Amino acid sequence: MSAGDQGVTRRRLLGGLAATGATVATGAAAMPRSAVKSWDMRTGVLVIGSGAAGVSAAIEARRAGSNVMLIESLSQFGGSSAMSGGVVYAGGGTALQKALNVQDSVEQMYRFLTLAGTLHPPLEKIQLYCEGSAEHFDWLVEQGIPYTEKLTLAKGLPMGDESLYFSGTEQAWPARDLAQPAPRGHVPGVPGMNGGRRLMEALLSQAAALGVTMHSGVGAHHLVVENDGRVVGVIVTIAGERRAIAAQRGVVLACGGFIHNREMMRLYAPQLYECSVPWGNAGDLGEGINMGIAVGAAALRMNEGFAIVPIYPPESALSGIIVNASGQRFIPEDSYHGVLGDAIAYHQKGRAWLITDRDSSYAFHQDNFLPVAEASTIGDIAALLEFPKGALQQTVAYYNLHAANGEDPMFHKSGAYLRPLQGPPYKAWDLSTTQAFFPAHTFGGLHTSVDGEVLSSFGEVIPGLYAAGRNTAGIPTAPYIASGLSLGDCTFFGRRAGRAAAARGGMSG
Amino acid sequence: MSAGDQGVTRRRLLGGLAATGATVATGAAAMPRSAVKSWDMRTGVLVIGSGAAGVSAAIEARRAGSNVMLIESLSQFGGSSAMSGGVVYAGGGTALQKALNVQDSVEQMYRFLTLAGTLHPPLEKIQLYCEGSAEHFDWLVEQGIPYTEKLTLAKGLPMGDESLYFSGTEQAWPARDLAQPAPRGHVPGVPGMNGGRRLMEALLSQAAALGVTMHSGVGAHHLVVENDGRVVGVIVTIAGERRAIAAQRGVVLACGGFIHNREMMRLYAPQLYECSVPWGNAGDLGEGINMGIAVGAAALRMNEGFAIVPIYPPESALSGIIVNASGQRFIPEDSYHGVLGDAIAYHQKGRAWLITDRDSSYAFHQDNFLPVAEASTIGDIAALLEFPKGALQQTVAYYNLHAANGEDPMFHKSGAYLRPLQGPPYKAWDLSTTQAFFPAHTFGGLHTSVDGEVLSSFGEVIPGLYAAGRNTAGIPTAPYIASGLSLGDCTFFGRRAGRAAAARGGMSG
Repeated sequence: MSAGDQGVTRRRLLGGLAATGATVATGAAAMPRSAVKSWDMRTGVLVIGSGAAGVSAAIEARRAGSNVMLIESLSQFGGSSAMSGGVVYAGGGTALQKALNVQDSVEQMYRFLTLAGTLHPPLEKIQLYCEGSAEHFDWLVEQGIPYTEKLTLAKGLPMGDESLYFSGTEQAWPARDLAQPAPRGHVPGVPGMNGGRRLMEALLSQAAALGVTMHSGVGAHHLVVENDGRVVGVIVTIAGERRAIAAQRGVVLACGGFIHNREMMRLYAPQLYECSVPWGNAGDLGEGINMGIAVGAAALRMNEGFAIVPIYPPESALSGIIVNASGQRFIPEDSYHGVLGDAIAYHQKGRAWLITDRDSSYAFHQDNFLPVAEASTIGDIAALLEFPKGALQQTVAYYNLHAANGEDPMFHKSGAYLRPLQGPPYKAWDLSTTQAFFPAHTFGGLHTSVDGEVLSSFGEVIPGLYAAGRNTAGIPTAPYIASGLSLGDCTFFGRRAGRAAAARGGMSG
Repeated sequence: MSAGDQGVTRRRLLGGLAATGATVATGAAAMPRSAVKSWDMRTGVLVIGSGAAGVSAAIEARRAGSNVMLIESLSQFGGSSAMSGGVVYAGGGTALQKALNVQDSVEQMYRFLTLAGTLHPPLEKIQLYCEGSAEHFDWLVEQGIPYTEKLTLAKGLPMGDESLYFSGTEQAWPARDLAQPAPRGHVPGVPGMNGGRRLMEALLSQAAALGVTMHSGVGAHHLVVENDGRVVGVIVTIAGERRAIAAQRGVVLACGGFIHNREMMRLYAPQLYECSVPWGNAGDLGEGINMGIAVGAAALRMNEGFAIVPIYPPESALSGIIVNASGQRFIPEDSYHGVLGDAIAYHQKGRAWLITDRDSSYAFHQDNFLPVAEASTIGDIAALLEFPKGALQQTVAYYNLHAANGEDPMFHKSGAYLRPLQGPPYKAWDLSTTQAFFPAHTFGGLHTSVDGEVLSSFGEVIPGLYAAGRNTAGIPTAPYIASGLSLGDCTFFGRRAGRAAAARGGMSG
């Protein structure tokens, strides 16, 4: 069963459940408090979702003295965070940066995050995030996440046990002219792609030790709303039975994005819909976002997400050139995967090719991208790909002319990767959204304050409702300029949402 | 006072009003029916907004036998439609096309609308729109809108009294290879930019003659919602007094986009925010969209809109070339204004220049775009604009080489405008979003069925609530491929929304 089919099945299930509601006309509407005859369970703060955002919220709400219940719709805890590399983007002088003599400052981190990415980024969130980043890293360490005092300068997620690296586009043009680059990717010091699992193990252990009540296999369907708009609980299903849970202080929506809800993808994020690999845990069906919208929340940047093309490692590939359907270069090849993917998916109609020569070609069988042309001359490559006549040849001639002088006047590729294309066999690797390994994940979500309060279309707080992580429109925007911004946002603002919910005066259920 | 300031002032006013509500915690929340002690007025269908969408809805609801009240927040009726050129995109063999021996078919119109624009367009709406287009044009004629049996093949809105022209990008590449081009811009046969006013005069006269009750100066603030989710009325202000209007059959939201709400623009549509000329009537503050969101409606394509750069007339300018900040061409210069504007605003970081030669230069003082460089060689132009060295020279050499043979291998500019750049003075005209005359208007809005029923985040109907025009996500998407699609969508789906609302069983207020 595909993820899309699962979405359909879940909706039918919801429809069936809704039909049993006494006075609710539609399956998706918020549930009026008056329709809930009695509560089956009560808690102080109810967290929906067990990824990094939800568990961080639960830990902090519990530490602030509230009873906390956390529910997860799937059988396993951890969400998409556990599938990820486990990178948290942190800087401004974290303990790990200091231990490794890495120079960084809050100001340079802020400059990078506000200048190198989207138009009109969320400045207030970014400022808090940068100012609190060193403390936030200490907190992650306190939760038991293991970091090693090892730095790597290689591009790409460390596959060894290094815990600090350049996880983004800091060193590529134009970012490097906008802010002083520093390595800010903080990753658990475990080999392979296991950082996310390790990070979630630590957070989940903490939550359990603190006494957070955790239930898996519990799907949330409707928020329960008082006549005055306050969110006071949630309708869930437990083992097929419908139950009402009262949340006396607040509900925290933290159940991820909507990459596996194909209908939402088509409607909200057509460019991401095209990408070959919907990337995320099977629970990323948009239910939390939709429950928020159903009670009047605004949702922002719903078209945005990451779309990444992992052309490195090996870094040798970066001595090739990337061209669009007109045979023109359009980006420095050493841009971070997320910046390159954004350029292709959103701005080049989903089509691009990496042209390699003898020494930049992938040395191994490269399953991520297929070689769609191979020839002994650039002209033959151009003919095979049916580029406009003479266009690729002109692009290569211009590139080679300047690369021979160590220059890239158009896109300022870093010197480490800059040299003329120097001999056959030439190959073209298909970087198109539909053909390449092109993972995508959504960034659109509910409009929230810096404390995770969910905001209405008029910018006003919806009392009792909080959200974090990919249920919200947070710091990650398109283009995605660095790995670790999503998990960083999840943990940093998850904590704030948990604290804010716990601090809210309780009310009778 | 700027449009943005007006938005702020209106919000404060709303906040004040809301504070007087007995049990409503937030100013923007939907108003519970239980908080409305009595209705001040009652109607069958209440239409909010007096542009083409609202008035078309009102006419059809009235014709279907319902009482209809239409309210307008400003002092004058007509909305942004009255400011527009009055173009309705229609085809598939309209009476006017037939009278002028224009060949067209529903299929070719559908191909153009589904293939030449956005990814994943709203197919069901487009199909109905194309199939019903000839009938819809007859309806416009019946309302008294004057059309002349005159066709012009000149590009750009006719300034004479011609009523049919190519209003979009049908003849430019790649559209002309995707669908057989036909002139489909139907515009009232009045000289100058008066088509929109003339169209609205006719529709407003019809509505009045049919007995639609119309009130100007009446702002709508909250939808009134029953406990089961049905929309049953609206809270408005009339002469500073708060009033409750019951709508026994339905409320039709038709009060335009949000181009003048700067906060919404920043949050939802950062690329459009950059454009120099927010284009729309002062009432385009997003209130209708926000009222819909407040009752749980989904809003789609909120980042999208038109962003247009009217580089023609004169068509002679199209023999120049348009380049990006890398000195590369990226589009056929004879693309429709909306297609060019989209490419610049969304895909070239807001920056582009038109390079003209002796014969393509604007002959008159051109207030829309400033010449930012003038020189006797292309190299000097490139130096003045600080393009990457040699890049513009290479672009021009390639273009000239092929143009001399009547070819444009990269972008297939139409032969009528294709010739080598042939001599100084060369000029560069700034087409940047912030510097050029760059009007923008929003396309994002509420998710609706083909009958204007407003849909929740789960795709379910919100009973009693309808929407049309730029309160909805309709046929116009980014890129905007033809003038008249917005007004066409407003009138076509406005009619359907009005009929659907009138047909709905009434209920006690």
